[in-house]
Amino acid sequence: MRFLVAPSGFKESLDACAVADAIERGIYRVVPGAVVDKVPLVDGGEGSAKALAEATGGQLVPALVTGPIGEEVPSWFALLGGPGPRTAVVEMAAAAGLRLVPNGHRDPATTTTYGVGELILAALDLGVDRILVGCGDSGTSDGGAGALQALGARITDARGREIGRGGAALIDARALDLSDVDPRLDKVEITVACNQHNVLCGDRGVARVFGPQKGATPAQVDLLGAALDNWADLLGPEVRTIPGGGASGGLGAGLHALNATLVPRFEVMLDHSDLDARLPHADLVITAEGAIDGQTPHGKVPAEVARRAKKHGKPVIALAGTIGENARATHDVGIDAYASIIAAPVALDVAMATAAELLTDATERALRLVLVGAALT
Amino acid sequence: MRFLVAPSGFKESLDACAVADAIERGIYRVVPGAVVDKVPLVDGGEGSAKALAEATGGQLVPALVTGPIGEEVPSWFALLGGPGPRTAVVEMAAAAGLRLVPNGHRDPATTTTYGVGELILAALDLGVDRILVGCGDSGTSDGGAGALQALGARITDARGREIGRGGAALIDARALDLSDVDPRLDKVEITVACNQHNVLCGDRGVARVFGPQKGATPAQVDLLGAALDNWADLLGPEVRTIPGGGASGGLGAGLHALNATLVPRFEVMLDHSDLDARLPHADLVITAEGAIDGQTPHGKVPAEVARRAKKHGKPVIALAGTIGENARATHDVGIDAYASIIAAPVALDVAMATAAELLTDATERALRLVLVGAALT
Repeated sequence: MRFLVAPSGFKESLDACAVADAIERGIYRVVPGAVVDKVPLVDGGEGSAKALAEATGGQLVPALVTGPIGEEVPSWFALLGGPGPRTAVVEMAAAAGLRLVPNGHRDPATTTTYGVGELILAALDLGVDRILVGCGDSGTSDGGAGALQALGARITDARGREIGRGGAALIDARALDLSDVDPRLDKVEITVACNQHNVLCGDRGVARVFGPQKGATPAQVDLLGAALDNWADLLGPEVRTIPGGGASGGLGAGLHALNATLVPRFEVMLDHSDLDARLPHADLVITAEGAIDGQTPHGKVPAEVARRAKKHGKPVIALAGTIGENARATHDVGIDAYASIIAAPVALDVAMATAAELLTDATERALRLVLVGAALT
Repeated sequence: MRFLVAPSGFKESLDACAVADAIERGIYRVVPGAVVDKVPLVDGGEGSAKALAEATGGQLVPALVTGPIGEEVPSWFALLGGPGPRTAVVEMAAAAGLRLVPNGHRDPATTTTYGVGELILAALDLGVDRILVGCGDSGTSDGGAGALQALGARITDARGREIGRGGAALIDARALDLSDVDPRLDKVEITVACNQHNVLCGDRGVARVFGPQKGATPAQVDLLGAALDNWADLLGPEVRTIPGGGASGGLGAGLHALNATLVPRFEVMLDHSDLDARLPHADLVITAEGAIDGQTPHGKVPAEVARRAKKHGKPVIALAGTIGENARATHDVGIDAYASIIAAPVALDVAMATAAELLTDATERALRLVLVGAALT
């Protein structure tokens, strides 16, 4: 029996490789002679640069940058190995991730992507041909304004003064001047790996959807929404609802103003995985993510894996720490069954600390149920 | 597709009927045309009298009795309906259950089964032909001494004085006089439904195995062990390791002295369920209990169901709130696969309060995994 194990990482707990290893151990408990093909997947968020550097034989390059709340933070980007154009992977979360925003500072109206621009500059210094910007796990909602500022853009108010950092300050922006943007960007292809379901403005925009998740009050959400509307006017009205423009708090929209190409994140992220080539050989596909819920179909790893698996008619099982609300919606995108790794009432921190073991046990339990079914017919 | 749903209750949360109903709802979500045969099972412990009264069209009879810590408690026994001998079911937990022992009083060396004897007297007053005593969920460890005292037995110390109540007092017992026991017992058949794995004395006896569970300190365990050894000398040495003699803190051993028959609890409890007759019609058997763990094979409902199902070659799935240590041992008794009802990190009290819903969802998840397997071949 051939298994394709294609999981995401479990945030703040296990990276995708560790998840795949834990699942593999569970498979061998139930099907000792199984053939297990592991394809740990990244989505552009935390851990993506490291995973792609490892997958291609490349390296991580360290850099000190301005963090989301203005303090200097140690960061990094990846220089991919292998043939083809010299490619840097800038994982935005490494410079402006939610992890870098202390709980007491969780006002998404004030955090900045300035450090993301600095990482791009550092990559330019190495003479790369291509920069892949990974979105996800962002702690910012500044429409990418900070990144543009770091790259040389001037954003000014009605009196011609540079505005401050953070999304809320964009309410005062009256002009965007790109004439001093680093000229090296003209010769570099910038690709932004976005969740295409995220848009900048409107009811499904950054302020309404992500503001509350990142700690904004209703009043802050309203202010941020108005500020990003104003920002969209300067970027060009087409960015208001461009797919992926709302990725990472609007970083997609901001970089779009620098002629970056916004692409569905899995199209680029899966380039390095050979997932499509490996699917035909699988009898059963197992995917996983920290949570399976109603958001999963909107561009999360398990849904993307399931959609591709279904093109080859393969059955898909998803494992998750939390089976959340409306998880049943995942059946529509090709996840045939899902199971939680939790086996008893337990606190979240305990579950996270023992996630690998829980995942192995859960794989075993799930496969024993599958075998009950296989024996029925 | 035909399902046989044969669960236990979930202690302090859902009775067996509610468990069966919740599972049935989950089945219909996945297999709308399923035929579902529900056989809620009791094990002699809490809820057994009520369930058997309902199953036979009988009734519950209220009675005030002496509780395990000596205070009067409202209790009951069942008068079964249907043809055959007039049968009362005395559920020992209704008069001496752990539930009746307040946390501050959890010293099993002092609690008494006196109330169980009073329930038997109340049943005798109704002129029954047969009394079935259900063991399980006991809060006592008095070797049934209290029950014997209530029925007229005299247990005296070296000076001929009646000893006090509770297991520890048995250390002073020097004589057991049954001459004043209620003579009506001679004409009534007493059957004690016991977990046959429970014995009165020794390393696997009441004091060593159950003392700690019921709140005893190591010193109390030693004292209780010595007291029950002494008690066994008076009851007759054969009761030391008679199967079921240790049921409900030794109630089995005590009633054995009144010529009660100790029978494996499922032989009598399943008499009323037709489980064996219904198994041949099932494609898949689903059982459940609050916990599945290394103790399950030792006489718990899911293991008994699985053993019977395997005689008919039927696959068995078990659902539980907690998948505990060494649950894998249940595969040896015929449970092919198990799953937890828990779908995310959660506190025990929250899980218990929403157990029915969790159980329905878990049934759905488990069956979708089974269907993945069924489609594989």
